[in-house]
Amino acid sequence: MGAASLVLLGFGQVGRAFLRLFLEKRERLRERYDIELNLRAVLTSRGGLLTEGVLHDPALGEMKREELPGSAYWKPDLGLDDIWDKFEPGILVECLSGDLETGQPALGFIRSALARGWQVAASSKGPLAVDMKGLRAIARRSGVHFKFSAATGAALPAADVGLLSLAGSEVTALEGILNGTTNFILTRMGEGVSYPQALDEAKLRGIAEPDPRWDVEGWDTAVKLLILANLVLDSDFKLSDVRRTGITELSAEEVSRAGRQGGKVKLLGRLETKSGRPSLAVAPFALEPGHPLFMVDGPEKGVTFTTDTMGSLTIIGGRSDPRGAAAALLKDMLAMGWT
Amino acid sequence: MGAASLVLLGFGQVGRAFLRLFLEKRERLRERYDIELNLRAVLTSRGGLLTEGVLHDPALGEMKREELPGSAYWKPDLGLDDIWDKFEPGILVECLSGDLETGQPALGFIRSALARGWQVAASSKGPLAVDMKGLRAIARRSGVHFKFSAATGAALPAADVGLLSLAGSEVTALEGILNGTTNFILTRMGEGVSYPQALDEAKLRGIAEPDPRWDVEGWDTAVKLLILANLVLDSDFKLSDVRRTGITELSAEEVSRAGRQGGKVKLLGRLETKSGRPSLAVAPFALEPGHPLFMVDGPEKGVTFTTDTMGSLTIIGGRSDPRGAAAALLKDMLAMGWT
Repeated sequence: MGAASLVLLGFGQVGRAFLRLFLEKRERLRERYDIELNLRAVLTSRGGLLTEGVLHDPALGEMKREELPGSAYWKPDLGLDDIWDKFEPGILVECLSGDLETGQPALGFIRSALARGWQVAASSKGPLAVDMKGLRAIARRSGVHFKFSAATGAALPAADVGLLSLAGSEVTALEGILNGTTNFILTRMGEGVSYPQALDEAKLRGIAEPDPRWDVEGWDTAVKLLILANLVLDSDFKLSDVRRTGITELSAEEVSRAGRQGGKVKLLGRLETKSGRPSLAVAPFALEPGHPLFMVDGPEKGVTFTTDTMGSLTIIGGRSDPRGAAAALLKDMLAMGWT
Repeated sequence: MGAASLVLLGFGQVGRAFLRLFLEKRERLRERYDIELNLRAVLTSRGGLLTEGVLHDPALGEMKREELPGSAYWKPDLGLDDIWDKFEPGILVECLSGDLETGQPALGFIRSALARGWQVAASSKGPLAVDMKGLRAIARRSGVHFKFSAATGAALPAADVGLLSLAGSEVTALEGILNGTTNFILTRMGEGVSYPQALDEAKLRGIAEPDPRWDVEGWDTAVKLLILANLVLDSDFKLSDVRRTGITELSAEEVSRAGRQGGKVKLLGRLETKSGRPSLAVAPFALEPGHPLFMVDGPEKGVTFTTDTMGSLTIIGGRSDPRGAAAALLKDMLAMGWT
């Protein structure tokens, strides 16, 4: 039986969901994959949880980040630097939020972990937007896995397909409905609801953040597109290379006109290649019924890849809430050699 | 830079397509994945090709199996047993056809290769239908990869998604349009064409074999369903466990009735779980417009997986001709550690 030490970095929504899912699934994973995963530490910016043995305490799954200092396992000021010497290299599960311009603080932590021979399953987009290519190079030099499915659509396996399933083919185009919030809003607008009302509904359902700009201005789509494009092209585009139009300027009339013509308006992230030059753009497009992403409605997501030797391939669905992201982190860990 | 010796087993349609694609892509793969792949031998049942160095001769891509004995590289009676001692373990690319009841001869060759520490990228369904679990166990013991994307839908990454992207989740149901021939025939029948006429069209286009029973009686769908189900469930079902109804008994009236009600008839392979007991069946079903596979028409294929923690996930498309199968073999090789 294989075994690996896990260190969980971050205890926001995704980190908590990961802890819960891990505790639920641990026994089953041992049985199915012959792997013993041991959670050794949980780190936040103010300190962390650590004990002599493992942290497999269901009570932890019920705690919020701000309650962690009340735990018997709490060590104030515990940081990653305290971890490196304590354990043999294992798997770092990164659930921070990384600034989009600098990728920090997650970027530095991931770099350190990979350089020290730890495998990394990452969920935040910042480090990938800033330096995916550099991180992958460090992982290669260290002979470890660096995976980040959770950052590009949670349980939608966009990164797996882009990296593994299309390996050896050239991706000539990519189109994705990569953001569930805007797709929900556009679907409702297509049903005759106004933009402000659709946005309110999305907030009520927890699909939109109180400050929805990240989604509706197309930033989230742009970052996911950037990561996927750099992955399939092995390129080093920056966020500033993505032309970006959100859905805030879209009129109800434009959406309903598309509907009268049998179409639907979707916010797409698009990689196109013209005369060998790839370009990246995010904008609302009116799709016709034959389009492979036409049926992707509500908060659902989907991506279509066009390739030279494998034809065109579409993936749709996959849970995209924190539990979906947690499942993607767990999948990435298992895919490091136990499947 | 990594390097690996390749041995190609079989020179039918898929084997030839693999050789051509490999020669086309070899330089690009070196550049992109930092891997030097060297084709050392090509084996058929009557002998094979072997030389001192590598077989990277474009003229080979133009030859048919029966012309190989005319090649300067031809060695009569050359077999796999002559190969094991000649090279360090590399990658065996299996493109034979394996009998569905015994899996032979491919099954024996794959077992030998895995036991000797060779990685295997397989394309034939027989060995997987007979003993996927056993083959995976040998691979695990030898610490090598055993991959078989090409056997479950060519460039449609059904095996990748089932094995890797859904790792750690429980697949509670699976539905697939797994056979392009029957889907083409049913699509044409939905457009008002009779079964015999649709079958003739499929033969004319090279989509159906001269003897179409393998497809239209549901065997091909059943085998692919079996392989995928055993993969996602880690089970050991046999082909005789799959209830199977083909499309030969389907009347034009049944298909057009579904059409009048807004639906479409599709031949589905279905894994269902009731009270914890999985069951496998192949049969024509009338799908309604909301179904995730509703838009999968003509010779296209698709699969929907339903899971406990990752929601529902659908994959559609991917080239499924010999070149698509060859691309899947190449992908499997790269996914053995170079992506």
